[in-house]
Amino acid sequence: MMKHPSVSAPQDRITIRHVAKDAGVSIAAVSKVLRNAYGVSEVLRNKVETSIEKLNYRPSVAARGMRGRTYTIGVLVIELSNPFLAGVIESANASLSESNYKSLIGIGRSASSIEASMIESMIDNRMDGVLIIAPRISGKVLERYARQIPIAVIAHHEPHAQTYDTINSDDRKGAHLAVEAALRQGYRDIAMLSYDLLDSPASVVAVQREMGYLEGMKQGGLEGKIIRLPPVAADRSTAIKNFLTSQHRPRAVFVWSDLDAVPLLNAARTSGVRVPEDLAIIGYDNSPPAAIPLVGLTSVDQNAAQLGRTAGEMLLSRIDGREHAQHVLIEPHVEMRGSV
Amino acid sequence: MMKHPSVSAPQDRITIRHVAKDAGVSIAAVSKVLRNAYGVSEVLRNKVETSIEKLNYRPSVAARGMRGRTYTIGVLVIELSNPFLAGVIESANASLSESNYKSLIGIGRSASSIEASMIESMIDNRMDGVLIIAPRISGKVLERYARQIPIAVIAHHEPHAQTYDTINSDDRKGAHLAVEAALRQGYRDIAMLSYDLLDSPASVVAVQREMGYLEGMKQGGLEGKIIRLPPVAADRSTAIKNFLTSQHRPRAVFVWSDLDAVPLLNAARTSGVRVPEDLAIIGYDNSPPAAIPLVGLTSVDQNAAQLGRTAGEMLLSRIDGREHAQHVLIEPHVEMRGSV
Repeated sequence: MMKHPSVSAPQDRITIRHVAKDAGVSIAAVSKVLRNAYGVSEVLRNKVETSIEKLNYRPSVAARGMRGRTYTIGVLVIELSNPFLAGVIESANASLSESNYKSLIGIGRSASSIEASMIESMIDNRMDGVLIIAPRISGKVLERYARQIPIAVIAHHEPHAQTYDTINSDDRKGAHLAVEAALRQGYRDIAMLSYDLLDSPASVVAVQREMGYLEGMKQGGLEGKIIRLPPVAADRSTAIKNFLTSQHRPRAVFVWSDLDAVPLLNAARTSGVRVPEDLAIIGYDNSPPAAIPLVGLTSVDQNAAQLGRTAGEMLLSRIDGREHAQHVLIEPHVEMRGSV
Repeated sequence: MMKHPSVSAPQDRITIRHVAKDAGVSIAAVSKVLRNAYGVSEVLRNKVETSIEKLNYRPSVAARGMRGRTYTIGVLVIELSNPFLAGVIESANASLSESNYKSLIGIGRSASSIEASMIESMIDNRMDGVLIIAPRISGKVLERYARQIPIAVIAHHEPHAQTYDTINSDDRKGAHLAVEAALRQGYRDIAMLSYDLLDSPASVVAVQREMGYLEGMKQGGLEGKIIRLPPVAADRSTAIKNFLTSQHRPRAVFVWSDLDAVPLLNAARTSGVRVPEDLAIIGYDNSPPAAIPLVGLTSVDQNAAQLGRTAGEMLLSRIDGREHAQHVLIEPHVEMRGSV
């Protein structure tokens, strides 16, 4: 793990007074904007936020602490039906409860508007911090909320973010390792099955995994080939069938997530495509379904337990006063099973 | 579904004044006990609770409503790693969000002390109601909390509870249907794989399923045989192996939950026991792993989507003023796959 040391606040710290003066409004008005209080006009919000960004103001953790802690952490997750994420949450929850913090979990349902509304609820409920897993909202919006509440983010690559912490599997390396595992087994015709990323930024894990895949192929002297599934998960089963029956089906495939790799392995075996004899498959997440012996999917393990525990600990150290952002990458490894 | 009609409160309603007078304390003191406020002595709590139970007092929903709604529901669940429960929560969450309610989910970790502490947090956070899934705490403790906040409970059979609602799969009927399905396939030597229930009351789903299994066997003119796994899930894999290699292994087995049925099916097939040729297996929950084609476990479906949706709707109708308890049973069915 790479970490930056904590540094205490300098003497010439920018305070809420500076922001109020710069924006030409009262301290109470700035406070209202920071708390996301009801009845704040767009004009006032814009004024105050412009000054906040200009001065690079961040409310001091000590000042937040004076209001009294609730010993409650909000956990915001994209969905619960991904069993890999359930493991990350349970690990974070267990780690937080060792420090007497309770977790309350909200579901973002893959919609940035719901995510924003959940984070605002968590702030309104005076939670001490928010742990966000695989957000859809942008880094810019995260920065805004991180001025109001301590935030740590899992599965969102933004190594230069200054106001919140990130904890990720090294997705680029994990994909690279998957390619190396396939090469070691003698495969050369290795495609990647990803999904339509539209204009996703590099913070998105699938973008990192595509980069790692392409690097691994290049290093093996091979050209990468990325096949894209539809952007909405519900539409993917037909696309997976088409992939299996296509004339140019590759000999091996690295799938961006077990969410698609497990259905692919099932569709293959139940339609007479032998795995790995006809098609080798490597997934990503090493999720519980991949580990079911009857499934037996080789998959990149991102260490759900360590992701959750580390994120919980980092969020608490931020709540306890650390002001400098930390960005941690967790080492992945390939869990070999029968599918390659 | 069986439902009781809502009835408005009678005129001679017991109020907080009656309780205060009976207990010989101030109205503020009663209010503190009801709110579970800090600094309430055990003596005061006992006095007030004795009067509350004697007078059968329940704080009016209208009075609670006057404090202003937060449009937030607490969801308390035993664990997230059971993928069947994840489906129930996502359905409840979706249904509540249609009425502009947010859900915040807490994990009880199979410990009644953690559950109690989470419910108290949810009350402290002024949530409008609590939805509890598969609680460990007793019906008596649920009654106490139900005086403080509207409560609906899933997977806890207590059809005579007066202060909270219950929503359950008809677990007894589901187990009965599983036996009938095995009988229809020609099996006679049908055991049930349950776990050590210690002194669990009839509110526990596994107790209901055992009753349904025994009824089904009796109706088929057969004697039931219940085999018990250790009470802690982590210790069960050895017991499952012993079951598979035992001399008196039955020809067919109904397993109390897919949580144990999926590992059993895996252990069987990967150790050379053919399913269903050597051993037929029926699970309960129809969880996502059961439905993976490579697993193909026949399982009793308790309709996760309907359980979650119905519970969400019932909790909202209670928050909106219904005072009479409702107890709903959802019809189960057997989802036939290749394991019988």
